Amino acid sequence: MELSVVPIDLDSDTPTVVLHGDDAIEIGVHPMDRVQLTQNGGVTIGVVKETTALVDRGEVGLTQPLSQLTGTVTVKPAPYPQSMRYIRRKLDDNELSRSEIRTIVQDINNNRLTDVELSAYVTGIYTNGLSLEETTFLTECMADVGDRINWDEPVIADKHSIGGVPGNRTTPIVVAIVAAAGVKIPKTSSRAITSPAGTADTMEVFCPVDLTRESIERVVRNTNGCLVWGGSVDLSPVDDRIIQVETPLSIDPHGQVIASVLSKKRSAGSTHVVIDIPYGEGAKVESLPESRKLARDFKRVGEHLGMRVTCLITRGSGPIGSGIGPALEARDVLAVLEGTGPGDLRSKSVQLAAKLLELCDVDADADELLASGHAAESFRQIVDAQGGDSTITTASIPIGEQTKTVYASRDGVVTHIDNSAVSDVARRAGAPKDIEAGIVLHENVGTTVSQGDRLFTIHAQATAKLNDAVELADRVSVYRILHPDETLIEQVG
Amino acid sequence: MELSVVPIDLDSDTPTVVLHGDDAIEIGVHPMDRVQLTQNGGVTIGVVKETTALVDRGEVGLTQPLSQLTGTVTVKPAPYPQSMRYIRRKLDDNELSRSEIRTIVQDINNNRLTDVELSAYVTGIYTNGLSLEETTFLTECMADVGDRINWDEPVIADKHSIGGVPGNRTTPIVVAIVAAAGVKIPKTSSRAITSPAGTADTMEVFCPVDLTRESIERVVRNTNGCLVWGGSVDLSPVDDRIIQVETPLSIDPHGQVIASVLSKKRSAGSTHVVIDIPYGEGAKVESLPESRKLARDFKRVGEHLGMRVTCLITRGSGPIGSGIGPALEARDVLAVLEGTGPGDLRSKSVQLAAKLLELCDVDADADELLASGHAAESFRQIVDAQGGDSTITTASIPIGEQTKTVYASRDGVVTHIDNSAVSDVARRAGAPKDIEAGIVLHENVGTTVSQGDRLFTIHAQATAKLNDAVELADRVSVYRILHPDETLIEQVG
Repeated sequence: MELSVVPIDLDSDTPTVVLHGDDAIEIGVHPMDRVQLTQNGGVTIGVVKETTALVDRGEVGLTQPLSQLTGTVTVKPAPYPQSMRYIRRKLDDNELSRSEIRTIVQDINNNRLTDVELSAYVTGIYTNGLSLEETTFLTECMADVGDRINWDEPVIADKHSIGGVPGNRTTPIVVAIVAAAGVKIPKTSSRAITSPAGTADTMEVFCPVDLTRESIERVVRNTNGCLVWGGSVDLSPVDDRIIQVETPLSIDPHGQVIASVLSKKRSAGSTHVVIDIPYGEGAKVESLPESRKLARDFKRVGEHLGMRVTCLITRGSGPIGSGIGPALEARDVLAVLEGTGPGDLRSKSVQLAAKLLELCDVDADADELLASGHAAESFRQIVDAQGGDSTITTASIPIGEQTKTVYASRDGVVTHIDNSAVSDVARRAGAPKDIEAGIVLHENVGTTVSQGDRLFTIHAQATAKLNDAVELADRVSVYRILHPDETLIEQVG
Repeated sequence: MELSVVPIDLDSDTPTVVLHGDDAIEIGVHPMDRVQLTQNGGVTIGVVKETTALVDRGEVGLTQPLSQLTGTVTVKPAPYPQSMRYIRRKLDDNELSRSEIRTIVQDINNNRLTDVELSAYVTGIYTNGLSLEETTFLTECMADVGDRINWDEPVIADKHSIGGVPGNRTTPIVVAIVAAAGVKIPKTSSRAITSPAGTADTMEVFCPVDLTRESIERVVRNTNGCLVWGGSVDLSPVDDRIIQVETPLSIDPHGQVIASVLSKKRSAGSTHVVIDIPYGEGAKVESLPESRKLARDFKRVGEHLGMRVTCLITRGSGPIGSGIGPALEARDVLAVLEGTGPGDLRSKSVQLAAKLLELCDVDADADELLASGHAAESFRQIVDAQGGDSTITTASIPIGEQTKTVYASRDGVVTHIDNSAVSDVARRAGAPKDIEAGIVLHENVGTTVSQGDRLFTIHAQATAKLNDAVELADRVSVYRILHPDETLIEQVG
């Protein structure tokens, strides 16, 4: 059917085709069906939604991913995408071939799969798993569809954390140390999706992170490192689409995690990668055997692709550092670089940097590079090269002035700080959108406290959000305080 | 955030909340997130889409399922629905409890799950399966959330086919025979979703099928039977929502099939049910062991719920009857009732009716009831009671006048008629929307044919659709004709 195009401004990711209900019947399609749009011999795929008011009969509403189409298009039912047959094979617990996996990745990349189908893919590889061989194929295919940076250097260092731990802003410190050791480390990071801050959000406190590829190459040539937002370079378009369904489902199939991380590293031209796998209660990986398996698989798939990979399994049962939220974490990062700052953040960052330097076969002392101020110097060079103010000091980073401190309601030892409670309260206070909002933790696990001691302070930019966060903090247990002899945590029923 | 409501006319099933992008950031939600809408203390759940043009800042667009809300509403992030925790437990291959299953069913019923989440549910029970106990709980919970009809009779007969076979319009014939035997059989049927006709589409050729519950009860009291569209009574709202994601995925998890069918039967007040399980190449169930397992599980779950269930495993590797499409199938049905018509459709219908009568402990001869014209009389009474023309004759049913016949290209024996090819060509010709469109099969499997013999005729109401269907029929193999000694079906590579 020949229809005239009306642009519809609704979301940005799924190519949506809004048809008048009567036209949809005429064409023989239902909501969620796939249609092909033909114009001048070119064929594009979209997913049907029906209306009786947004467009008239004879018109077709197209959302942003289809905005290249104007004038009139021919709309027809589209064939079932080949990749759905392979996804169904995975649901039936078959091992997929390289070419089947390639077809799935290409169909995701070309936006041929609907949300429902993509959810079936993610769920299927979660329940039935991917073999090491399938994971390797998936990593290769995902790397193949994105851009690729070639550095023409034998050693390009990189680090990654699988996340799930509030604070934990080791990346800027690791990059600073490694760059100071003379090793190239062009780091791309994400913004927060479900957390109070991503590395890109924190770095934005210091300098722009939305750099072009040319700027990135210039910064790295001049400073050995960079700390930019990954979204500004299109290294892994397929990963972005998969995350859209993984996030609401809160599932992270291991094979997909490995493929997502390593395909991005491969596209970024990295050769030596250290991976932080935080494990423990409330972390993404809760058991030690599970984290060991993930680590081994990372290493094997990496090696198969010609990358040297080391994984560090780290304590993930509570936050790392004291600030949670973009500006508060930025203060921690700068403090550690200048010789103060939270001890756990410092020690973890030094260990990651040391392992990465060792993996790169570079004879340099990470601890010394930090203690001597060389790392801080490298960090300021990077900030400067990315267009930020390199004279920034910890105290000059503004933090939310609306505050409320929470005190210990009893004597005892801090035995647990809850990752998701910390994260939820910081988000409720406004992070990451309000960059000055979040939490400062005053006491770490293992500390003996008395009733009335400060535990944590909530910072916000707006009073309403402070009140919301305080109200939430009252309901959830952020800190757990027990006497050394106490064993009871909760009574049920 | 307090926003003023703007109605948005887009689809009808998912409660969609269209927010201006800036408001979404302010509220702290992303596309596909769930929000709760509060008004006068009442709370409703919806799923976020973002726009920068469809609504302004300060406005919220609500689709049809939320049309009860007008004026202003308060929009907040909604808590993660409890049922997603249980769905994740199923993804981790745990057995779910009755109360966990109840929560899932209630959340689906209250539209609390997004398409992505519902897809994860369907995929999870497909890959990890449901135990017999879980299936029983699911059936009970699904029946509990819908309407229920109470007939105050010890025996209410019913039949169901799990489908997948073109033609196969046994239901009107079975209902006519059973009603003629004096047994109450209030039959609700579906319309076509992916097939060229559903029983409701075919019956609509004879009479209205969209009856109120009161009319259904009157028709059944007067004639012992009815043949109505299930959508006119809200017996299984949850099933309708699940089908929306099963259809694009083309998966039908066994436990879900059993729960969907039996919960509907339970809500309809049925006590004795015969279930047709067509199996074979191109049917929904392709292996005999698999169809036996499905049959046993149907029987066990039914018994647990106090229903007597018999399953007949039938030949499903090809179409049953010769007409495919609403009017062409209606002609077959009437012809069988009047003593002519396709032999396979007659024999299958008689067998299903005989088994159902036997199950109901009724001493009546199905074959005799059909041969004597009593069944035809019952059928005409039902058609009359539903408001149709009971004097209708086979020849007076209009069928598509645009036709094209396809002939055998070689001598041989018809060894296979492809279900999905038949279905696709009939739909391309216009069925089920064009009720006179479809296919008439002239030769059945096992017949010896000579080159140039008629194989099938495509009927359409519009020339363009006839041409489309002819073009498709040229590309797919509707009939397979081999010499008796031939074994090669296809060469690959």
